[in-house]
Amino acid sequence: MSDRKEFRDLAPPEAAHEAIASLDLGGGTEHVPLREARGRVLAERVDATLDVPGFDRASVDGYAVRARDTFGADEADPARLELTGAVHAGEEPDVTVTDGTAAEISTGAVLPDGADAVVMVERTDTEGDEVLVRTSVAPGDRVMVAGADIAAGERALGPGTELTPREIGLLSALGVDEVPVRAAPTVGIISTGDELVRPGEDLHSAAGEIYDVNSYTTATAVEEAGGEAALYPHAGGAASAASPERADRPVGDDYAEMERILTEAAAECDLVLSSGSTSASAVDVIYRVIEEQGELLLHGVAVKPGKPMLVGRLADSAYVGLPGYPVSALTIFRTFVAPAIREAAGLPEPRTATIDGRMAVEERYAEGRRRLMPVGTVADERGDTLVYPVDKGSGATTSLVEADGLVEVPAETEYLAADEAVTVQLFSPDVRVPSVYGVGEDDPAFSRFLDGLDRPRYLSLGTREGRRRLRDGVPDFAVVAGSDGADDEYERAGGWTREWGVLVPAGNPADVTGLADLVDRDARFVNRGQNSGLRRALDDALAALATDRDTDRAALTDAIDGYDMTVRAHESPARRVAAGDADAGLGLRATAEQLGLGFVSLGEQSTSVLVNPERTGKEGVEALREVVENADAVLADLPGYATE
Amino acid sequence: MSDRKEFRDLAPPEAAHEAIASLDLGGGTEHVPLREARGRVLAERVDATLDVPGFDRASVDGYAVRARDTFGADEADPARLELTGAVHAGEEPDVTVTDGTAAEISTGAVLPDGADAVVMVERTDTEGDEVLVRTSVAPGDRVMVAGADIAAGERALGPGTELTPREIGLLSALGVDEVPVRAAPTVGIISTGDELVRPGEDLHSAAGEIYDVNSYTTATAVEEAGGEAALYPHAGGAASAASPERADRPVGDDYAEMERILTEAAAECDLVLSSGSTSASAVDVIYRVIEEQGELLLHGVAVKPGKPMLVGRLADSAYVGLPGYPVSALTIFRTFVAPAIREAAGLPEPRTATIDGRMAVEERYAEGRRRLMPVGTVADERGDTLVYPVDKGSGATTSLVEADGLVEVPAETEYLAADEAVTVQLFSPDVRVPSVYGVGEDDPAFSRFLDGLDRPRYLSLGTREGRRRLRDGVPDFAVVAGSDGADDEYERAGGWTREWGVLVPAGNPADVTGLADLVDRDARFVNRGQNSGLRRALDDALAALATDRDTDRAALTDAIDGYDMTVRAHESPARRVAAGDADAGLGLRATAEQLGLGFVSLGEQSTSVLVNPERTGKEGVEALREVVENADAVLADLPGYATE
Repeated sequence: MSDRKEFRDLAPPEAAHEAIASLDLGGGTEHVPLREARGRVLAERVDATLDVPGFDRASVDGYAVRARDTFGADEADPARLELTGAVHAGEEPDVTVTDGTAAEISTGAVLPDGADAVVMVERTDTEGDEVLVRTSVAPGDRVMVAGADIAAGERALGPGTELTPREIGLLSALGVDEVPVRAAPTVGIISTGDELVRPGEDLHSAAGEIYDVNSYTTATAVEEAGGEAALYPHAGGAASAASPERADRPVGDDYAEMERILTEAAAECDLVLSSGSTSASAVDVIYRVIEEQGELLLHGVAVKPGKPMLVGRLADSAYVGLPGYPVSALTIFRTFVAPAIREAAGLPEPRTATIDGRMAVEERYAEGRRRLMPVGTVADERGDTLVYPVDKGSGATTSLVEADGLVEVPAETEYLAADEAVTVQLFSPDVRVPSVYGVGEDDPAFSRFLDGLDRPRYLSLGTREGRRRLRDGVPDFAVVAGSDGADDEYERAGGWTREWGVLVPAGNPADVTGLADLVDRDARFVNRGQNSGLRRALDDALAALATDRDTDRAALTDAIDGYDMTVRAHESPARRVAAGDADAGLGLRATAEQLGLGFVSLGEQSTSVLVNPERTGKEGVEALREVVENADAVLADLPGYATE
Repeated sequence: MSDRKEFRDLAPPEAAHEAIASLDLGGGTEHVPLREARGRVLAERVDATLDVPGFDRASVDGYAVRARDTFGADEADPARLELTGAVHAGEEPDVTVTDGTAAEISTGAVLPDGADAVVMVERTDTEGDEVLVRTSVAPGDRVMVAGADIAAGERALGPGTELTPREIGLLSALGVDEVPVRAAPTVGIISTGDELVRPGEDLHSAAGEIYDVNSYTTATAVEEAGGEAALYPHAGGAASAASPERADRPVGDDYAEMERILTEAAAECDLVLSSGSTSASAVDVIYRVIEEQGELLLHGVAVKPGKPMLVGRLADSAYVGLPGYPVSALTIFRTFVAPAIREAAGLPEPRTATIDGRMAVEERYAEGRRRLMPVGTVADERGDTLVYPVDKGSGATTSLVEADGLVEVPAETEYLAADEAVTVQLFSPDVRVPSVYGVGEDDPAFSRFLDGLDRPRYLSLGTREGRRRLRDGVPDFAVVAGSDGADDEYERAGGWTREWGVLVPAGNPADVTGLADLVDRDARFVNRGQNSGLRRALDDALAALATDRDTDRAALTDAIDGYDMTVRAHESPARRVAAGDADAGLGLRATAEQLGLGFVSLGEQSTSVLVNPERTGKEGVEALREVVENADAVLADLPGYATE
């Protein structure tokens, strides 16, 4: 109920659209060279200012004549005309055609004075200085008169025309080399948070630094929508409107500095965007600057995830604050900001901006707020699009590439049923439904197999999660390490084995010989999570050891220092061992050899690709089968791997 | 029959595809800054080389604690912990959490040593130096462990991935600032013909110069397909691979010069494109250079318009020669060259590259050669796409914007029936079906009305052609000047009147007072063609004059010097008069005033918009109706125009 109350203080989504529409996002006229005008939109009508062609033009090779000199001529009784000269394309004629004469003429050449038609060379012969014309022609024959293609004063292209190669061609013909186009709105992007570092710079993880995700994502999304993006720096760097990349460091939380950057961006850009700061102080300073130098139109929108959204004016510029989570930022940008940028740039929404599909699963909603639900897509066997929810507020960066777009769910909707029709607003018009979608074990061999597929999606969430999702029927396949009785229900599209064990520092300084040493000695161990097939193999081995020792498994796992310290991916334990943060880790021989670590083998594990029974005939699944079947070369290259 | 025989000497289209596929169009790997990588395609797999986040990260504002210190705590019985310090985002912790202590922590900050969980601030109070924790937390609560989002060693993105904002976001998170992408194939474009002038330069029409259409059209089409285009000059200008625009003048027909340019382009580019020269000598030198320095694989393809097509190798480069007519050049490019460029760039065919439709009219084919038929498109009332043939080999530049794409018609097809389903290969993925399509009079008022419509197509082919096409049922509307009994069959979406007459030099030096003066005096007159509604008005007036004089019209027209000299557009006669090339011309008062000419009124002409009966409910037609109904302001601005 407290949640519901809060929604009443948030602006309705329509108000957010209206607030943004009320802002001036620029969009005047600018002139660009024709050569760079592709994809731009004409701001004004372009009329022809010259005739095309600009002269009466021969349309074949032959002879320029006065038509009446040829009247009555035919094969048997040619007209004999005196040859008085020649005109070639690109030359000014230095000959005049008078009664009884003709001039040689090339295709594209200017019809000389006096001539009113051209006879094609195939219908003529020459005899000395004479041309024998073996046909009768009418005035205008084989001549393209000046302006016949387009004439001066004619409307050539209208305002709002998107310039594709064909329009560029017409403008070329008219000699236009600078084109009046809708100006791209300029968008300044400010990143907030002292902990953010630009890609390419050194990252001090120990100091809590992370790479800035939203700045580049938003900048490229701005460009995709037809805007011009400028990144604003944290500090230093001579900022000027001329340089599109202002900066090396994101905007810090320092009040004066942030105020300076905001003011500068507002002065230079039509729109300023920031994305949610982790620090309340950054939000405070944005508030203060907007209230002092502009107007806050709206704070918080009653749409999930619109709560942190801000809309306002900042000096003569528009301002929108986006949420901090990457998928949320892109969702709010796609829904509220991109349409306004396109509008200012004069661009229509791309035809591929949305796709229709149906829900792959039922999805229920607890709270009464409109949702912009991030979704993934997968094709069924018929090629129709199935839609499933992703990133339920996780804030993970990886969700960015799992989510294809969003589905708008009205506030009053309590659930979307499986098979219910929905429209997906794609995060980019270039996003396509993956050719094949799988979930399962993080396996280095399978990672390589994926390289052989066109547009696959694979989430390495582990064997257990792979089995769970396959059971729910959404993915096309799962990759499972280790076996399970229920696996028999599925078609198995091939498999392989991998050697697993304990990874130790190079040279195995502690002389670890097997699992028992982990239990009995004082070694810092790094484990994998419950979803991992490797973890299952370890637990099975521990259970067997417990049986041998006539104890229970918990007694053994309690004795392993770090058994509960689990990490995400197949290389993670190995990297902790390599970094000296642990004495041993769970992993694969392939990983140990790749990272130059020691390896104590504990066994081989069978790994399989299981296929969703409803997708066995799908093209992407067939491509996957083929890649797995032809896996020998990849497997031979990976230590500890083998074909079955 | 001679035509049929010739086809046997042309290569089948499949051979042309194979020949081009056999050429090496580059497509290696290059590294681009992440900020500029949008729309590019990953050349290699990108694995994470670091953990995201790179440290155990607090996911809320609160207190970093040892979870076991909170066991059993609740609202009534809080755990009391000693506050030992604070950690903010972007700071390296200078505090260690030991038993019985807690540290203040901000969202995004590094979990300090000793702590294993975070308690959100809302579940705590402070009393002096103590924190009262009113809930029990488990190890890991409110902590995002290092690598939880993506871990070092995990596969992030695969080769072939098209980079949209979301992929840019993931790469940002990984700190990647240079991305290995498929290199864009470089394409050198050579224009042939001494008569060609680049847009923006002075044009000497008297010397037969015309603006070069194919170079810019092809260059932008290359870029649209994912290639990088370089225009090669005719002569002079230090050509270098670094400068994308090599030139000011197109390639001339001079042998040595052409050879130099071809050789240079082949050395610098993956592919060299030329478009048909009007001069046989240019083709000769291309032949010779290819045969000396490369290999001619194919000359002429058995597809209309593929006869002039050339495919070969030139040194280490690929070479394709395109036809000279703009629509033909774009047709051959779209069909044979664009797919090869996309393939080399690693790009898929855009989803909007084709549309399905049905034939609006029957079309018959006389000869047995496969056709790439240029077509226009128009939507019917239901929004389905109708397709009709355009540019039957006219070579006109204006056809470029009349044709939306092409339909492949197999050699054995004798006709396509009306309503037959066809697939249109659009000339650009950005081409859209026009919102409304009309044909008719070239009228300055109507040109302005068009500015108020979104994506209209209007061909000013004259009143007669407008009526004819409307009768055939293809356009949505026709604009007709003057009336015709058959017009009553159609809904009339408004109309206006315009004053027409004879345009004379400023001040009317010859004191022309009416039509009779044209007949009776020795004045050079410029007429409009038979399709023009103005011409019809003139002929009607001449017929009336003939009746008055008791003679026939032919007697009068014979007496007008230039009656048969017709020009294309509404301003054309006026411009000839203004240039001193004629003493009088047929035209409108509006044109006379615009160009500062004298005007002798001969009457008013009613002009109407007639609607295709099958499209009266179409959205684009409704928009047109509205624009014409609200025409007062436009008409008030044009001398001689009036609302009805």
